[in-house]
Amino acid sequence: MQRPLTESKALLTDLYQLTMAQSYWQHRVMGTATFSLFVRRLPEERGYLVAAGLEDVLEYLEGLRFEPADLDYLESTGIFDPSFLEFLSRLRFTGEVWAVPEGRIVFAQEPILEVTAPIIEAQLAETYIINQVQLQTMVASKAARCVWAARGRGLVDFSLRRTHGTDAGLKVARCCYLVGFEGTSNVLAGRRYGIPIAGTMAHSYIMAFPSELEAFRAFAESFPDRCVLLIDTYDTLEGARLAAQVARELEARGHHLRGVRIDSGDLLELSRQVRAILDEAGLGYVRIVASGGLDEYQIEELVEAGAPIDSFGVGTRMGVSADAPWLDMAYKLVGYEGRPALKLSRGKASLPGEKQVYRLYTDDLMREDILALRQEAVPEGEPLLERVMAEGRALRPHPPLRELRQRFQEEFRRLPQPYKELQPRASYPVRLSAALEALERRLTRELTSQRRPLGES
Amino acid sequence: MQRPLTESKALLTDLYQLTMAQSYWQHRVMGTATFSLFVRRLPEERGYLVAAGLEDVLEYLEGLRFEPADLDYLESTGIFDPSFLEFLSRLRFTGEVWAVPEGRIVFAQEPILEVTAPIIEAQLAETYIINQVQLQTMVASKAARCVWAARGRGLVDFSLRRTHGTDAGLKVARCCYLVGFEGTSNVLAGRRYGIPIAGTMAHSYIMAFPSELEAFRAFAESFPDRCVLLIDTYDTLEGARLAAQVARELEARGHHLRGVRIDSGDLLELSRQVRAILDEAGLGYVRIVASGGLDEYQIEELVEAGAPIDSFGVGTRMGVSADAPWLDMAYKLVGYEGRPALKLSRGKASLPGEKQVYRLYTDDLMREDILALRQEAVPEGEPLLERVMAEGRALRPHPPLRELRQRFQEEFRRLPQPYKELQPRASYPVRLSAALEALERRLTRELTSQRRPLGES
Repeated sequence: MQRPLTESKALLTDLYQLTMAQSYWQHRVMGTATFSLFVRRLPEERGYLVAAGLEDVLEYLEGLRFEPADLDYLESTGIFDPSFLEFLSRLRFTGEVWAVPEGRIVFAQEPILEVTAPIIEAQLAETYIINQVQLQTMVASKAARCVWAARGRGLVDFSLRRTHGTDAGLKVARCCYLVGFEGTSNVLAGRRYGIPIAGTMAHSYIMAFPSELEAFRAFAESFPDRCVLLIDTYDTLEGARLAAQVARELEARGHHLRGVRIDSGDLLELSRQVRAILDEAGLGYVRIVASGGLDEYQIEELVEAGAPIDSFGVGTRMGVSADAPWLDMAYKLVGYEGRPALKLSRGKASLPGEKQVYRLYTDDLMREDILALRQEAVPEGEPLLERVMAEGRALRPHPPLRELRQRFQEEFRRLPQPYKELQPRASYPVRLSAALEALERRLTRELTSQRRPLGES
Repeated sequence: MQRPLTESKALLTDLYQLTMAQSYWQHRVMGTATFSLFVRRLPEERGYLVAAGLEDVLEYLEGLRFEPADLDYLESTGIFDPSFLEFLSRLRFTGEVWAVPEGRIVFAQEPILEVTAPIIEAQLAETYIINQVQLQTMVASKAARCVWAARGRGLVDFSLRRTHGTDAGLKVARCCYLVGFEGTSNVLAGRRYGIPIAGTMAHSYIMAFPSELEAFRAFAESFPDRCVLLIDTYDTLEGARLAAQVARELEARGHHLRGVRIDSGDLLELSRQVRAILDEAGLGYVRIVASGGLDEYQIEELVEAGAPIDSFGVGTRMGVSADAPWLDMAYKLVGYEGRPALKLSRGKASLPGEKQVYRLYTDDLMREDILALRQEAVPEGEPLLERVMAEGRALRPHPPLRELRQRFQEEFRRLPQPYKELQPRASYPVRLSAALEALERRLTRELTSQRRPLGES
């Protein structure tokens, strides 16, 4: 029943990428194309996005190849010319990638990455690139909102059971850590990414013992120095009193109860009462962890109400980005054979040419971004896109996740508060450079009058 | 940069499953437990759910084992007792699974599957089981709504680029096909699951040629018998006229244009005008495919308005189940060592005991489900849960996807229309058997008075 190990990522693409590739190949349309990946519009309740997913894209591009079993399958469909499949068997990604580093903040219309390569290679990679960057950018942005809402309290990713599949589970854990979560419950993510793993106990554990007290004692005995007791299986306040009893028993043996977790009910009210019970018992050091359907909105409410919660376990709503479960992300042809290109489809127009984003600051706070052509110089601006791959090879090892996490922290400090709010009070200004605007106007005019798909540069 | 092949699914679990396991093991809590997987409440706009994901669960359980590299990682965390890790290295899933077959319709509170196994095994598997069954049940249900809305018109899954990661992309394609989609654009899903693959062309293809007409001609030459032309890159009606021209050129060479695709704009109005252009040119056989941000609501509107659309490409909103991107699915301990168990946490109560769902029909239409204890007999009812695994081995090969698809079609025919509506007009009746109700009442009373987690049977 195990899946064959020869399943490669090359087939993780839309069929039309392969049929277009064959047609390009047959018609010798083999020129160099540039595709730009960007989000058309931010979801209503997002004031910013956190770029993420680049590491997976670069790994994919470096490893892109069709294995014999892939080619056998393609042949079996009867759609493809055998000599095209022969061409595919030798295909590697040989292009260049410019990208905004992971953990940096981006806005609508700004390229997150741009791929320049022979058109077949650049086109084939579209599906996987969007798949990974949209997921990770969406989740990093959602998780960053949780971090903001928690105002310094700890956060742990509990989402694996409700993420959309296993790949999402791993990427969510990665993106949470990138934006400042303390850890994840996802053990494989811990192993793969070196993220601290965390966890407490489930209600079923309590229920498997003859009484709640016996369950607490057993768990405390197993993990005397890292024990967090789940206290809401039957009655939260009674659970808190039993936890206090076990905490004192632990003290008598030279250990300390780390915390208690509340997973249901009115978290504000319960956390206050539980805190009081613990404090009365002289257990000021025992932390309170809250979980159960939390997202940034509820976290902010609890924090603003002064709930004595030290740490939040965040699951489903964050892990699926429930209020904005997709981004309107596109990967558009912006240049071919040295000429800038643009598309006019209603509501889906794209900006022509290879681009750069320049960021301007005032007093170390982000003020405005300028979307410019890549070869333009905007001396006062900080360029966001970096050349990260050339001739199909990454130009340097990808930074470790801890470094990306550090970068995000620095970046986030420079984002003015109005854009950080859960209901953003302003839209960050992104304007086009004069040269880009002129190019767009000229191409639109030419296309509208001549119906020619590509403008002359 | 490639991930090590030794990454096994055993670590795709929450840390607490492993810490609880160690504590169970240390305290010799090794009894047989039954866990029940069910959805607590249906999302507001769902009248039914389509059970899916079982094949992956059974494959996972059969293959569950900790590889040396997994154990090395666990050891490196410093959390675990070496002799527990030794125990883990020999752990296999040895339990029994009862499940509702994939493609059958289920409702809130009804177990989709029940696992009976030594508590450590049953508990460890929780995270992966929920992860897969919640994703696939959610998407199969969403996709079934699209099929219903399309009233017999064709549907193709275009979602891979916007699904949450690659695992979701594959599972979405699988679930779409299960409920009646014609195919998917996802090539790897085509290979893995034997689903027909489909696709047209992208705007970038048009833009890479000097003119739209040249692009159309090139593609028609490459695929003279399976050519669907994308006509909205510049101006949809002009695109339709050019497509008609290419269709006649194809006819002259003995071929037929298969279709045109509209991906933006007012699909109702445009499809009418495009149909008129094609019909005037004597091209009544050329199909119209519509795509671009579609979901079941828009499909129903278009179909009810009589839009001459033959087939819909459905992507993002279906692939992420945008209006309900998660299900409130739980995996709860319902029995331990032969005694039924239940949990009282507010808003999260669960029903005790191993269960069976009996379905009653009137005139071959579903009338009512009875949620009963497994050993109860409800002679007039059809039992939904089947024993699918014993002693850790699947009892039969999993049915091929085509068979599941067939089963869903038959099943869906028996669901009365009010529950099929996109805004369901009624809530399907699920009632508890007298015996289950009595057991629940008794255990609740005992727990409330004695604070004992397990009732005596």
